[in-house]
Amino acid sequence: MSLHIEPLAVNQANNQANEPSSLLVQFDAAKPLKLDSGALLSPFQIAYQTYGTLNSDKTNAVLVCHALTGDQHVANQNPVTGKSGWWDSIIGQGRVIDTDKYFVICSNVLGGCMGTTGPASINPATNQPYGTDFPVVTIPDMVRAQAMLIDYLGIDTLFCAIGGSMGGMQVLEWAASYPTRVFSAIPMATAAKHSAQNIAFHEVGRQAVMADPDWCSGRYLDCGKRPEKGLSVARMAAHITYLSEPALQRKFGRKFQDRTAPTFSFDADFQVESYLRYQGASFVERFDANSYLYVTRAMDYFDIAADHGGVLSKAFLKTKTRFCVVSFSSDWLFPTSDSRALVHALNAGGASVSFVELLSDKGHDAFLLDEPSLVATVNGFVQAAAKTRGL
Amino acid sequence: MSLHIEPLAVNQANNQANEPSSLLVQFDAAKPLKLDSGALLSPFQIAYQTYGTLNSDKTNAVLVCHALTGDQHVANQNPVTGKSGWWDSIIGQGRVIDTDKYFVICSNVLGGCMGTTGPASINPATNQPYGTDFPVVTIPDMVRAQAMLIDYLGIDTLFCAIGGSMGGMQVLEWAASYPTRVFSAIPMATAAKHSAQNIAFHEVGRQAVMADPDWCSGRYLDCGKRPEKGLSVARMAAHITYLSEPALQRKFGRKFQDRTAPTFSFDADFQVESYLRYQGASFVERFDANSYLYVTRAMDYFDIAADHGGVLSKAFLKTKTRFCVVSFSSDWLFPTSDSRALVHALNAGGASVSFVELLSDKGHDAFLLDEPSLVATVNGFVQAAAKTRGL
Repeated sequence: MSLHIEPLAVNQANNQANEPSSLLVQFDAAKPLKLDSGALLSPFQIAYQTYGTLNSDKTNAVLVCHALTGDQHVANQNPVTGKSGWWDSIIGQGRVIDTDKYFVICSNVLGGCMGTTGPASINPATNQPYGTDFPVVTIPDMVRAQAMLIDYLGIDTLFCAIGGSMGGMQVLEWAASYPTRVFSAIPMATAAKHSAQNIAFHEVGRQAVMADPDWCSGRYLDCGKRPEKGLSVARMAAHITYLSEPALQRKFGRKFQDRTAPTFSFDADFQVESYLRYQGASFVERFDANSYLYVTRAMDYFDIAADHGGVLSKAFLKTKTRFCVVSFSSDWLFPTSDSRALVHALNAGGASVSFVELLSDKGHDAFLLDEPSLVATVNGFVQAAAKTRGL
Repeated sequence: MSLHIEPLAVNQANNQANEPSSLLVQFDAAKPLKLDSGALLSPFQIAYQTYGTLNSDKTNAVLVCHALTGDQHVANQNPVTGKSGWWDSIIGQGRVIDTDKYFVICSNVLGGCMGTTGPASINPATNQPYGTDFPVVTIPDMVRAQAMLIDYLGIDTLFCAIGGSMGGMQVLEWAASYPTRVFSAIPMATAAKHSAQNIAFHEVGRQAVMADPDWCSGRYLDCGKRPEKGLSVARMAAHITYLSEPALQRKFGRKFQDRTAPTFSFDADFQVESYLRYQGASFVERFDANSYLYVTRAMDYFDIAADHGGVLSKAFLKTKTRFCVVSFSSDWLFPTSDSRALVHALNAGGASVSFVELLSDKGHDAFLLDEPSLVATVNGFVQAAAKTRGL
């Protein structure tokens, strides 16, 4: 476990915002994006990856929606970190969502920093990065942008929309906003609204970033700085919430790192401290601090019921989508009770719903891991949906 | 709810470290304190409050141990904040621990910032504040210092030692280190060791403080600065862990603060954000940032079993103390399972133990609140112990 940071990686991450190693679609002044805030975003672009081939009926498209700090590189080597795709336990050749059978699409979210327009993108009005001049975006804004990509690709109806955490929020928003365009949906480890506790943790992270003088009131890219310490603290706090207490206990307990006794200092005596510091330092290499502010804010604002007169079931009244809702027993960030509330609303709306709470001690991040029960659940649901869809 | 900070309060807080509004006992070179780290601390002082009168048999002394950010002002107006005593729901005239009957003692912990020697105290070797030259201290160090105070007061055996969270750790350490000097003990919302998750949260807080350039490598007092932003972020993160998700939901939910719709900005739109910011800002007024580092570190190192060959029950083999262990059902920082592990060890050691898990949705901080079931529990136990003690 090393804290060494390659400067090259940082430069690559910066370039990805404006010169992504991905497919790109650009929407000019003729196709502005009207945001929930009332602002018009134009021009803007979406960076995305595809895997497999769209069939002639255009019925085999799967949209993968990524989480807060994810990106479009779901099933290929990441150009910044060099790591393999973040969900290659689920997506890929011979996987449950088999790219030999399905046409898989994953796009960087609006407000992200991997090529879709966000605060690190160049603002054409100033030729400088937007910074905090970028308009605040919402989950529905992200989904409207994705829908423009799906239109551009000539696809009417997605066979499946799938994602965990903030990805699951987008999946739900797709089903609510485009009730006829999503054949099946797999929202995992998510909720129909962000809880007070989750807003609180996000606010701590944002305050950590904004407390760093190198944040420069959001204009750090202009002055060649980056709020690395603040963003690292934000990531450390968030990372604890992605795990579970039992997993931390099993993985680290009170074990010392490279020593047999305490140093009686503020060094990282305990393995869990060393691990957290590494998580903070490596995150800073690959993620833009302002994107972190914008994307957490989008999650905070997420509340499907509020957009439908305060009644969640109304959001899904017209839906033809079949749902597979997945939660994890040790996820305390998006607990099973959130999924259960969602399932009740879907049932009340008359939707077709499967609901599985998977037993795992790995916390929220379990959806990203190669959990056999998760793979089996997705497989069963997707196979059945594919049969119905005639695939 | 205001974020206005009185500069006077900050100055008072600084003065409290060296000129406390409390009773003081000073231990000179003849009575050094040998720390677990091996360092000798000398001279040093303890700032403390007492309430009531010690009886002629000296059998009615109650030691109250405070938590991480508490202080000795348990039952009187706080000289910095102007608020009433932090535990006047339990301690005071006519209260469950009645100061007309008991002689109540509460001292600021070693490493604190309210008059007991800590990093904000003047180092006699340099005539400057210790800062990070202060030696790292442990919970056993704090308790050894308290025992010197109890000796100084001429008390052999405490009728009761009581405290929650880190205060509960001190109560347990008292019973383990001085098995004949504690007649009864009430450790609440605590554990016999600090968990990996709790160490992780503390590490985030410390990194937030140390990331603030105004921390000045620990020497901020020398240069007239204070790492207010970093300490505020640390407090915000910690404060979430003191509450429960249901309490946050009940208290704030997704309610807006002073507005009816989102501002699409990074202002504190949600009440929970505004509340957290207030918690951070008001904490900075009254607490020293280096003390926060030292006292969190003491908690991290706490592991009674490790000090007794890895077997917790061995720590209590000789104890004559009767215990009342209290946990709260919604406390996820020190969950009931921690208390249960403690109770098993006490039973294995043959100790006299009562154990109560109180139903509350208020999280870890429930022990500080005026909860009728808590008051009733303490009352029942203390009354019975007093009868046995002949009080």
